Amino acid sequence: MTEPTNSTASGSSPGKILAPTYEGDFVLDKDLALECGCTLACPTLHYAVYGRLNAARDNAVLVCHALSGSALVGSWWPEVFAPGAVLSLEHDFVICINMLGSCYGSTGPGSVNPATGESYGPDFPLISVRDNVRAQARLLDSLGVRSLRLVMGGSIGGMQALEWSIQFPERVQRGLIIGVSPLGAMGLALNHLQRQAIQHDPEWDGGRYLSQKPPRSGLSLARQIAMISYKSAPLFNERYGRNPNRSGEDPWANGGQGSGLGGGLIGGRFDIAGYLDLQGRRFIDRFDANAYLAILRTMDTWDPLRGYGSPQEAFGRIRARLIFVGISTDWLFPAPEVKRFAQVIRAAGADAEYREMASDHGHDAFLAEQAELVRLLQ
Amino acid sequence: MTEPTNSTASGSSPGKILAPTYEGDFVLDKDLALECGCTLACPTLHYAVYGRLNAARDNAVLVCHALSGSALVGSWWPEVFAPGAVLSLEHDFVICINMLGSCYGSTGPGSVNPATGESYGPDFPLISVRDNVRAQARLLDSLGVRSLRLVMGGSIGGMQALEWSIQFPERVQRGLIIGVSPLGAMGLALNHLQRQAIQHDPEWDGGRYLSQKPPRSGLSLARQIAMISYKSAPLFNERYGRNPNRSGEDPWANGGQGSGLGGGLIGGRFDIAGYLDLQGRRFIDRFDANAYLAILRTMDTWDPLRGYGSPQEAFGRIRARLIFVGISTDWLFPAPEVKRFAQVIRAAGADAEYREMASDHGHDAFLAEQAELVRLLQ
Repeated sequence: MTEPTNSTASGSSPGKILAPTYEGDFVLDKDLALECGCTLACPTLHYAVYGRLNAARDNAVLVCHALSGSALVGSWWPEVFAPGAVLSLEHDFVICINMLGSCYGSTGPGSVNPATGESYGPDFPLISVRDNVRAQARLLDSLGVRSLRLVMGGSIGGMQALEWSIQFPERVQRGLIIGVSPLGAMGLALNHLQRQAIQHDPEWDGGRYLSQKPPRSGLSLARQIAMISYKSAPLFNERYGRNPNRSGEDPWANGGQGSGLGGGLIGGRFDIAGYLDLQGRRFIDRFDANAYLAILRTMDTWDPLRGYGSPQEAFGRIRARLIFVGISTDWLFPAPEVKRFAQVIRAAGADAEYREMASDHGHDAFLAEQAELVRLLQ
Repeated sequence: MTEPTNSTASGSSPGKILAPTYEGDFVLDKDLALECGCTLACPTLHYAVYGRLNAARDNAVLVCHALSGSALVGSWWPEVFAPGAVLSLEHDFVICINMLGSCYGSTGPGSVNPATGESYGPDFPLISVRDNVRAQARLLDSLGVRSLRLVMGGSIGGMQALEWSIQFPERVQRGLIIGVSPLGAMGLALNHLQRQAIQHDPEWDGGRYLSQKPPRSGLSLARQIAMISYKSAPLFNERYGRNPNRSGEDPWANGGQGSGLGGGLIGGRFDIAGYLDLQGRRFIDRFDANAYLAILRTMDTWDPLRGYGSPQEAFGRIRARLIFVGISTDWLFPAPEVKRFAQVIRAAGADAEYREMASDHGHDAFLAEQAELVRLLQ
């Protein structure tokens, strides 16, 4: 539970890593009724806090992590805590809660299903963003936190931040929603490709694989598909271009006639291929395939209007001041769509500002260029 | 060999399908020395012709097909032959030659290797775009065609068209190069993902699978990855949006607890997922996995400057009048890069014009919106 992770980021964050004030588990004392109609038996939420709740109980901030992130926000978003940045270890009480479905401590497909005594595996139910937010509210209740001065997150973390503002309008003063809008058809397509990469791996075995024999090649390919949507063509061109792989392979090598290079059909890799393979390898050592599938569905199904009659009815509930951040080269959640989404929310009567982050880093910019993000928010 | 195919297109072309004047095989009387250093023993080129060579032998046009296309250009590009369009069945002698490495009649990985008496499989060597062009020149020699009034193609077909203009400057009067520039890092990344999808399928078996037991799930996923790069986010949003799959699936369905829906980790599909699955299924019935791998490498390795000291030295050879066409929503070969590429070629002293096709169809527009393409070229 203490492994530092970058949510969607490939690279590591520069600067120091902050240790939490406390890291531990909260077990819900009741089953969680899910939007899909199932229940999740008394789930565990793994969480970390930084700083301390003040006597007035008005300094709490909730940070929501992205797909493959963990509760250790001080490890993957350290520059957001820099002096004068967005958060203050001295003045804020920062809470970050691992998502349900994840493999970093909260109840997920790898957890034991009390009904069977075995891990959930493919029986793990669909958890929505709203389900997560409702469970998180119970944890905040237990910490004595009624009001959040800020809830913030990028990507699926931003989905949670907005859902908090809608579901618990009286508890949220400000919201910071980065690089996200409801997933469009292209985003759904990318998730469908990733899902298949895992499903097609025979080691996945319908989700019933043993932890020591996971679907490594499938999860690696899924991560690599995701990486192309997290980054940008300009960044890839600048960093990798058409260079041969830096390990010394030759894309013109002809592996036919038994050279051991995998035949003339494969051959030596370009540098971008070596980079992607490395990202895949790193990921399979730190993430679980079923957890990945679970959170893809959480992302796919997010619809903040679900159950409301109109945008006015849903977004009109919001009392928080919201800032939306679009990233100029984001391909997964294009900046124009984030901007349009903020406009829809403002048109529904909420206080929603839009700012744009100029970056070549694509969707990943909120993790890869933290100093830029902080500057934009100051 | 008579199956009509759409090169990269998913949909079928509207309008009538034209029958070729002749369709057959040409066998090179010598081995083909390849750029990679290997030789290909007396390869076969499968080709089709439309119309007749006139007495002056000055009405020949060469059309080069895209990745999964065939020699039957009248089937996949019929509107280019419409009255007053780009080509004329009455006045032109149109030749289209299946690429080496393909599974539509020319020598490819599924062909018999005369050295072993068995199919090449993974021993099939790397064939470059230039290798293809040199082989095609021999076929044109045999047809008595010395001069081409036009050579044209989209995607990898455009790579061949430009390479023709460089390698045989005295034989090409005009070139039409659509939706293509040397593949950048993002394009190489997409091809790397597709390659892995096939390689990871255990049925691929290192490329030695039997034709009756091909790597279906791997090739299907590869095709689906390609489809997202052939289309565009606006088109997907307009056509599929966030709709549930039209067959009646529910993306909110919870398949857990033995419902047969693949567990809560998978669930019902969105419409875009149903579309992609259908494209994958259709493709595995008409294309071969090793042929796909072979042509990916042909695309990856294309570098028109290879062997030349400078752009001037390579592109300065060109005598043809070239028109480059970029497609406004092309993600695989972005229009700004096609434009920049045309500028580089013009700066090297060639006659290179750039035109842009406004379309929501992405890279596929040259096949999906043929009437628009024809209008742009008139």
